[in-house]
Amino acid sequence: MNKLELHIKQEGTVLGENVLKVDSFLNHQVDPELMQYIGQAFAKLFAEEGVTKLLTLESSGIAPAVMAALEMKVPLIFARKRKSLTLKDDLYTEQVYSFTKQEVSEVSVSRKFLSSQDRILIIDDFLANGDAALGLAGIARQAGAEIVGIGIVIEKAFQPGRQKLIDSGYRVESIARIASLSDGKVQFATSDIID
Amino acid sequence: MNKLELHIKQEGTVLGENVLKVDSFLNHQVDPELMQYIGQAFAKLFAEEGVTKLLTLESSGIAPAVMAALEMKVPLIFARKRKSLTLKDDLYTEQVYSFTKQEVSEVSVSRKFLSSQDRILIIDDFLANGDAALGLAGIARQAGAEIVGIGIVIEKAFQPGRQKLIDSGYRVESIARIASLSDGKVQFATSDIID
Repeated sequence: MNKLELHIKQEGTVLGENVLKVDSFLNHQVDPELMQYIGQAFAKLFAEEGVTKLLTLESSGIAPAVMAALEMKVPLIFARKRKSLTLKDDLYTEQVYSFTKQEVSEVSVSRKFLSSQDRILIIDDFLANGDAALGLAGIARQAGAEIVGIGIVIEKAFQPGRQKLIDSGYRVESIARIASLSDGKVQFATSDIID
Repeated sequence: MNKLELHIKQEGTVLGENVLKVDSFLNHQVDPELMQYIGQAFAKLFAEEGVTKLLTLESSGIAPAVMAALEMKVPLIFARKRKSLTLKDDLYTEQVYSFTKQEVSEVSVSRKFLSSQDRILIIDDFLANGDAALGLAGIARQAGAEIVGIGIVIEKAFQPGRQKLIDSGYRVESIARIASLSDGKVQFATSDIID
């Protein structure tokens, strides 16, 4: 059991068959040393890929992704979920359906930060149906960038996200993979990071 | 000129008298080594305060705050700007007006992550009118926690935020302080971090 799986086992709360609450260390309260562990794991998994930039989605992707960016010594871009006053023109935009919030939002990245020379690693906190990751991939593809892979903190392996991303041609690596949340219990599938 | 001031001078874009765009290293694209520098600076400034938790606001506060949290070896909480499906009950909530977005939003923190035993350091990316920081302080006060100070990445020193926070009894430390954005130029005031 790796360090993230241990946190999930000890602190995660199962809210029904599909929802795992990890707000004590990932997406509301954040454990910075665990984020560093996750960032180092992504850096190791994608060390040979010549990554030039990381791309994630606000807000919960930022903490693990900035730690990976520090380890890999490349910039991080976090896609915005809606337009703000200081971030308006010249955007790459995709529509993304949020499983958690059950709504469609527009995610966007300023064109000036992505180019066809970039080799992009996408990072996200959860993988369920794959919509957020596919939205980020769509943004990178609009820029003509190469997508070297998708790094997921917690994958719900019983949902179709991983297969959809693999079918789209992307390499997927997850630090924790949940096989099932049935009967209020977390069952893990084999992770891409063992120790 | 410290490392953050140098980034602002070289990469910041002045958009009118009040708006400084720093989306190439802070609030859209993120420079992780600069975030580490900022995190270490906050850790040094508040080293004697016995901080138990950091509190920031999604999204742009997360990257500098998680680096400070790593350095200080304490958890970070990022307040949410609205309620989501997995984060609904038992919240401390405050109304906050966003200068950038020119709208009011509700920010909230789960009650279980704050207690009267906590010594809270508030971190935010920008200080202009002080509304976001006062909202975070209001949340910590609802919990009966002690607020040891407010760490700001970029302070617009020509706006009333700092004085409002000081008048409310809070210690304020900023890594970069902007004296003026007139004539399309950034003029710095003396920062709380020199080197």
